[in-house]
Amino acid sequence: MQIAVVLYDRFTALDAVGPYESLGRLPDAEIVFVAERAGPVRSDTGYLALTADRTLAEVPSPDIVLVPGGPGQTPQMENGILLDWLRTADATSTWTTSVCTGSLLLAAAGLLTGRRAAGHWLALDLLKDYGAEPTGERVVLDGKYVTAAGVSAGIDMGLTLVGRIAGDEHARAVQLLIEYDPQPPYDAGSPHKAPAHLVEELRSNSRFSPA
Amino acid sequence: MQIAVVLYDRFTALDAVGPYESLGRLPDAEIVFVAERAGPVRSDTGYLALTADRTLAEVPSPDIVLVPGGPGQTPQMENGILLDWLRTADATSTWTTSVCTGSLLLAAAGLLTGRRAAGHWLALDLLKDYGAEPTGERVVLDGKYVTAAGVSAGIDMGLTLVGRIAGDEHARAVQLLIEYDPQPPYDAGSPHKAPAHLVEELRSNSRFSPA
Repeated sequence: MQIAVVLYDRFTALDAVGPYESLGRLPDAEIVFVAERAGPVRSDTGYLALTADRTLAEVPSPDIVLVPGGPGQTPQMENGILLDWLRTADATSTWTTSVCTGSLLLAAAGLLTGRRAAGHWLALDLLKDYGAEPTGERVVLDGKYVTAAGVSAGIDMGLTLVGRIAGDEHARAVQLLIEYDPQPPYDAGSPHKAPAHLVEELRSNSRFSPA
Repeated sequence: MQIAVVLYDRFTALDAVGPYESLGRLPDAEIVFVAERAGPVRSDTGYLALTADRTLAEVPSPDIVLVPGGPGQTPQMENGILLDWLRTADATSTWTTSVCTGSLLLAAAGLLTGRRAAGHWLALDLLKDYGAEPTGERVVLDGKYVTAAGVSAGIDMGLTLVGRIAGDEHARAVQLLIEYDPQPPYDAGSPHKAPAHLVEELRSNSRFSPA
């Protein structure tokens, strides 16, 4: 089972690495990190590069497509090479997935029109503008399309997908292996739980914007 | 504030990227990924490489040291270059931290002797053999030493440390930004919660061993 994780300049690293850590433990997983050009691709902070081992063109028909989000998603919304690749790969994929603002790229490629979808809470309005039906849920399955909310939600998505593909028993073993028994030191991880002034601050502060 | 994330062959990617995603959003963070040699370093699955931008020797005195775990930790337990660097860096660090079996490397360097510490649940006995006092907790602070349980626990550790350094308000903003409102699809993330037969299977199956 070939799983293509799409990288582009200024993606958010945890968006990609969270689900990778679960999906990479599927029984017959072959994960390949892809980008328009092969080589190191810098994440949004500038401090971390992940290697794209193959070009998009070299991996035309993965079984699973995974698109992370991040501030660099915005310019990619008009990258015909990436959008064409997404449409082509989606035509034969078993699962087409995204984390955070990655769902905006799927939507821009026309793949989420009329579909329920998740995305970073700051991006839900825009997701609607691109024809999807944002739900505010953490992980959304609509047919073969699996989309996750912001950044860390990719971990929940990854385990959900492992369960669908390899069964609950295998997914529980992966959860135990990565010791995913979350104990956040605060309870501010969603706009419904965080203090209202922080929600407003992030809404108005482009420094914090994912898009 | 310089934060050095140590890479080595066959580390576990989420161990490093989980806390990086929070710590990189400290107000004056400069994160640098380091390894014995600069360049791409392969994680445990073989499918992902992160770039070490600098050598250990080039970053002798970071403010924060972060050591991930992973199957590749075992041979590093006898790597004098790494252990010497850890001891030297620790002499001037503000915080010395680890995720998963990374605490075994801190312990092998003699930095956790007599200290309370966390680590992957499969590694707690070995942590004791190296002179630390494993607690089974998810994140342990003992003086300037902050250690986390397996893999995904690094996210909780990162947010905890952001709170200590930049205050609760900033940590809550980071949590909201990375939308860390975990909703695992199963409740099997610790040996106390997972089915007993899975715990035994992972204990006896080196394929699943983190060390």
